[in-house]
Amino acid sequence: MGANWGHNLRLSIFGESHGKAIGINIDGIPGGIELNMERIEKDMKRRAPGRNNFSTQRKEKDEIEILSGVYEGKTTGAPLCAIIRNEDKRSKDYSLLKEVMRPSHSDYPAYVKYHGYNDVRGGGHFSGRITAPLVFAGGIAKEILSKKGIYIGAQIKKIKNIEIESLNSLTLENFQKLAEKEMAILDDEKILEVKEEIEKVRKDQDSIGGIIECYAIGLPSGIGEPFFDSLESTIAHLAFSIPAVKGIEFGKGFDITSLYGSEANDEYCYQNGRVTCKSNNNGGILGGISTGMPVIFRVAIKPTPSISKIQKTINVKTKEECELAIEGRHDPCIVPRAVVVIEAIMALALLENLYEGRDKYE
Amino acid sequence: MGANWGHNLRLSIFGESHGKAIGINIDGIPGGIELNMERIEKDMKRRAPGRNNFSTQRKEKDEIEILSGVYEGKTTGAPLCAIIRNEDKRSKDYSLLKEVMRPSHSDYPAYVKYHGYNDVRGGGHFSGRITAPLVFAGGIAKEILSKKGIYIGAQIKKIKNIEIESLNSLTLENFQKLAEKEMAILDDEKILEVKEEIEKVRKDQDSIGGIIECYAIGLPSGIGEPFFDSLESTIAHLAFSIPAVKGIEFGKGFDITSLYGSEANDEYCYQNGRVTCKSNNNGGILGGISTGMPVIFRVAIKPTPSISKIQKTINVKTKEECELAIEGRHDPCIVPRAVVVIEAIMALALLENLYEGRDKYE
Amino acid sequence: MGANWGHNLRLSIFGESHGKAIGINIDGIPGGIELNMERIEKDMKRRAPGRNNFSTQRKEKDEIEILSGVYEGKTTGAPLCAIIRNEDKRSKDYSLLKEVMRPSHSDYPAYVKYHGYNDVRGGGHFSGRITAPLVFAGGIAKEILSKKGIYIGAQIKKIKNIEIESLNSLTLENFQKLAEKEMAILDDEKILEVKEEIEKVRKDQDSIGGIIECYAIGLPSGIGEPFFDSLESTIAHLAFSIPAVKGIEFGKGFDITSLYGSEANDEYCYQNGRVTCKSNNNGGILGGISTGMPVIFRVAIKPTPSISKIQKTINVKTKEECELAIEGRHDPCIVPRAVVVIEAIMALALLENLYEGRDKYE
Amino acid sequence: MGANWGHNLRLSIFGESHGKAIGINIDGIPGGIELNMERIEKDMKRRAPGRNNFSTQRKEKDEIEILSGVYEGKTTGAPLCAIIRNEDKRSKDYSLLKEVMRPSHSDYPAYVKYHGYNDVRGGGHFSGRITAPLVFAGGIAKEILSKKGIYIGAQIKKIKNIEIESLNSLTLENFQKLAEKEMAILDDEKILEVKEEIEKVRKDQDSIGGIIECYAIGLPSGIGEPFFDSLESTIAHLAFSIPAVKGIEFGKGFDITSLYGSEANDEYCYQNGRVTCKSNNNGGILGGISTGMPVIFRVAIKPTPSISKIQKTINVKTKEECELAIEGRHDPCIVPRAVVVIEAIMALALLENLYEGRDKYE
Repeated sequence: MGANWGHNLRLSIFGESHGKAIGINIDGIPGGIELNMERIEKDMKRRAPGRNNFSTQRKEKDEIEILSGVYEGKTTGAPLCAIIRNEDKRSKDYSLLKEVMRPSHSDYPAYVKYHGYNDVRGGGHFSGRITAPLVFAGGIAKEILSKKGIYIGAQIKKIKNIEIESLNSLTLENFQKLAEKEMAILDDEKILEVKEEIEKVRKDQDSIGGIIECYAIGLPSGIGEPFFDSLESTIAHLAFSIPAVKGIEFGKGFDITSLYGSEANDEYCYQNGRVTCKSNNNGGILGGISTGMPVIFRVAIKPTPSISKIQKTINVKTKEECELAIEGRHDPCIVPRAVVVIEAIMALALLENLYEGRDKYE
Repeated sequence: MGANWGHNLRLSIFGESHGKAIGINIDGIPGGIELNMERIEKDMKRRAPGRNNFSTQRKEKDEIEILSGVYEGKTTGAPLCAIIRNEDKRSKDYSLLKEVMRPSHSDYPAYVKYHGYNDVRGGGHFSGRITAPLVFAGGIAKEILSKKGIYIGAQIKKIKNIEIESLNSLTLENFQKLAEKEMAILDDEKILEVKEEIEKVRKDQDSIGGIIECYAIGLPSGIGEPFFDSLESTIAHLAFSIPAVKGIEFGKGFDITSLYGSEANDEYCYQNGRVTCKSNNNGGILGGISTGMPVIFRVAIKPTPSISKIQKTINVKTKEECELAIEGRHDPCIVPRAVVVIEAIMALALLENLYEGRDKYE
Repeated sequence: MGANWGHNLRLSIFGESHGKAIGINIDGIPGGIELNMERIEKDMKRRAPGRNNFSTQRKEKDEIEILSGVYEGKTTGAPLCAIIRNEDKRSKDYSLLKEVMRPSHSDYPAYVKYHGYNDVRGGGHFSGRITAPLVFAGGIAKEILSKKGIYIGAQIKKIKNIEIESLNSLTLENFQKLAEKEMAILDDEKILEVKEEIEKVRKDQDSIGGIIECYAIGLPSGIGEPFFDSLESTIAHLAFSIPAVKGIEFGKGFDITSLYGSEANDEYCYQNGRVTCKSNNNGGILGGISTGMPVIFRVAIKPTPSISKIQKTINVKTKEECELAIEGRHDPCIVPRAVVVIEAIMALALLENLYEGRDKYE
Repeated sequence: MGANWGHNLRLSIFGESHGKAIGINIDGIPGGIELNMERIEKDMKRRAPGRNNFSTQRKEKDEIEILSGVYEGKTTGAPLCAIIRNEDKRSKDYSLLKEVMRPSHSDYPAYVKYHGYNDVRGGGHFSGRITAPLVFAGGIAKEILSKKGIYIGAQIKKIKNIEIESLNSLTLENFQKLAEKEMAILDDEKILEVKEEIEKVRKDQDSIGGIIECYAIGLPSGIGEPFFDSLESTIAHLAFSIPAVKGIEFGKGFDITSLYGSEANDEYCYQNGRVTCKSNNNGGILGGISTGMPVIFRVAIKPTPSISKIQKTINVKTKEECELAIEGRHDPCIVPRAVVVIEAIMALALLENLYEGRDKYE
């Protein structure tokens, strides 16, 4: 299982990399919302493959076909199902994959779990391609959040050993700038540096990973739940749904362990009559609930496991060790395309929590 | 909400730090399991307060009373509810907390969310004390897992700036040694060093945090689900339920972003006819599913927010800024007591995934 | 499993007839609600055993102990766990039950399911006694609903062959009258008739069942969800949780199948500017959503399976057929005590649906 | 919400009567199952409209397009999404429906709930047409169940005042005969009688309803859960998802209330060494768990609310009362087409319960 997520906003995802179509059924979207398809399609393009040198050469327009839940341009309140047809499939690239397990891919555990019946073409249902419908759902969530004054942005924080400064000012304007860049980095020189690094690794038939930092501003305090449904739990649950994510941290994250409590604690004060914190080491969340400060988290994205370099592995049919050079099309670094996916899960997690019983306190 | 977790193993938690009792209702435990109460109580003691200098001075025996689901010493298959009465309550310590918000505690967001109706005594439902029932549930899960040859251990990886080496050998024997130590560190000199650090910080009326590393061995490959119910999602969801956790990473975690794909990938080989990996940078999980290698993750625990040092904060009644020195009993470093809680969530997450539809593949 | 119910209001139930305690953990109750314990205890007494001739002679005060979620007399928003200690246990009555299966009880299927590990004393977790915590939860739900002008009542509609007229006027006043009667029947002569019938059957060492009709008034239109979470689905799901319920019907129910569409359809009209229906054959629900008319359903309660008369059955240990006369204490007719349980599930189902995303339509 | 159902088998449904497509995403189907599409398409045809005089004249082939989850003719274990394009749409028929509320349809409560944004064409998401994907899912469930020796059948029990005898022998052979009939009635004379009745009512511009009886044989004992997830709860929850269902009863159902306990109880005996019951008044379920006897339930289907006869109703825009004659295509009696839908929900409910933790008892 694993296709379903959410209590208040219910997602049901499906599809394989080289099947007929991928898609998502979204339940819990209220009626009467006008979908800004232009904005959503922009998001889709930020993730879509084949647009530049640092991505796979597979070309997919990732065109959304909405099957239900929208009538006369507005959501109806009924489940909204959208699909994306897979166009540029090359299934012949993947014929060996039923036997030879690609290291650090899902191939082997999926082979064991599904007794060899899983669709292996391009990783099948385990492909990063399945995040495309998530970006669509995130686009709708962003639309709804933006009407409540909640905005989401994300940037690349690190690629291999290149560190990028965090935004010095968390504003909608900066978020928009980031979204329009070729790569979610404000500093153009850093972009060049990163592109060179990726180009180098592509030529070396290798791959690299990195860190993405994600922000939400405008979220009021009091959103999130105690214990099992903490805002962090909700976000982290979604984050680890995304292939290649190996870590997540909020606020200062792992570095908070080097501080004294007196340094780490975020002291409160009043600013123009509104409660605020002098620091935000907790990333806008305390006790699983939003404080009103920006929500900030970072995720670690591992180097793309598909590399053309020769690797040692096994053949599960012959039960022998063997070598493998993964031909076909793959991203030397998935991080730039993953940025909008991370934004999507922030948006979905916040909306899920916003929809949790806000009416009850009357 | 937030009291409930799990699809196949369903937990429902309740209680406040200074209420009558805390507890948990566990559904999904099969009938016929003999509870090793001695082992479970050992786990309870590893978390219990008041046992030494580096913990709070609140004294709680944390005695388990099983109300249902056990008959003639064995589980019945019906929901198992267990409670722990709160004994050593000192509610007078907490009278100011309705107005003055403790920095980096849940006080302020909970005040907003519950309109001031939340139980503030000792943090109420947000107290770390609520993890005691989780340790009990984890104890049962460990019991069931151990019968399948799956064992769980954890160690302190870092306290403030003191780094501790990871286990060089992941064995049941080492896990048991760790569990019997005063603190989950194999090296006694390191324990001394850590205790000194904690004692120093206690005298300074300050606090510190750290990192816990958790291991599971013996988990077969093929456990876990794709996408939304990945093993990492399940574990992370639970991890962020625990107060003070601010980050989680699997395998190499954030450091994997500094490697090339050719370095990071875990190549397969056969060892005595069994599939294994030459490295375990992915922490035993690929595509959300176990590979058969040990599952490894680390969590970051922030410094205890309760410190006696004077802090600046606000009074939400008078709407004025003020100062606060948190009197009462608190842990200068919660990390040692949190180790067994982290083990518990590993155990619960693995059992949840083990119980997911294993019979279907026939 | 089966201990958990609800998305917006989450119940987690536990306990056995002769275990230490039965209880329920309720999550999703907003903070700040003053529990009218007097009213709730009245409800508890309507279900409690041992109060008159037509009930079992087991005497239980069914005293509620609230363990969490209430502070200074008001709900806190945290999970509210309440338990009821079992007092008048006589476990010796039940010693044979591990081998000899009582007809029409859960004994045999539970024996198969739990491999004989289920608690058999008094039916264990399958006992009707487990509905006591449900009545408590229902009492809280009624409290919250009543503040929104939604009221719930129920009456006995039939006992064996004695038919009782439905309320001719669905008013709070009539509901209260019903609740205060010895038995939920307005007509005192009918009560006498029913009591005589029950007394007769008790002497005959036999049992009888009946039909309960339940009403909700004041529910606005637009509550409930399409398809899988229809209001009828929600109510029916809960209704069949109650031991002995074998049927449920809404509005005209099964009798609607004898009408023409032109007779069955509920035509709309305006009454003082408000939408209403000229009839209510659909029991206040269309397309799974409330119409604003009273919600009406009936449940069929089977005759108590425990009878002292000699019955033929099997011994699963010896694998032989045998005879059984069930000694001990049992209700010749459970219907009168079940009325308040049925009210409870109406209240819980309505609240669950009321809490479903009402804020979304902004 | 309401698009999602199931814990172990997770359905997510979508679509509107006159939208682009209807469909379902099914998660939890194991890998390696060969879909018998011929059998499934037969089921689809039993429900499809336009095939004869007693159905609507809308013509839909209801052709299934599987988008995911099937590879090389077998299920993969990944979510299986299937869609059905709507072909014979006539949206002009429905232009008035935004203002004039059809009696006993979902129009009015949906108008209130969705603030007028719901898709009104043909009832939109509330249309009976949405049961087509359910029949597809049910077809897969039947396939899996049949391999475990579990078979499902259903028959018409009553149309208006015409009563039809129950099967005198619950066998696969009889189930297959019923499925191949023009109408699920074994007795051809009764079919004629029913067809005449439907033809009469069609000419009268009116409609009629009826009762469907559904059977499952071969289900082992021990399937189902106590309390909230009783087998009856699971089945009833699904049954009331189907538009027009107003009642459900198991075994003797409402009539069991006229019996004495000594008559109603199903006594056990051994037959060729296997446990069986001398009667089946409880419809194969006790304590929410299967007994091993056939599972039997009946549902009441109300007369189609769409009738051409003039009805009184309201216009929610003008806030005036008005008259309405529903033109367009509708079924004078939906019961014959609903039979296979009822079978589907039996199959889905049984599979959901079969998949619930069977491996745990080891």
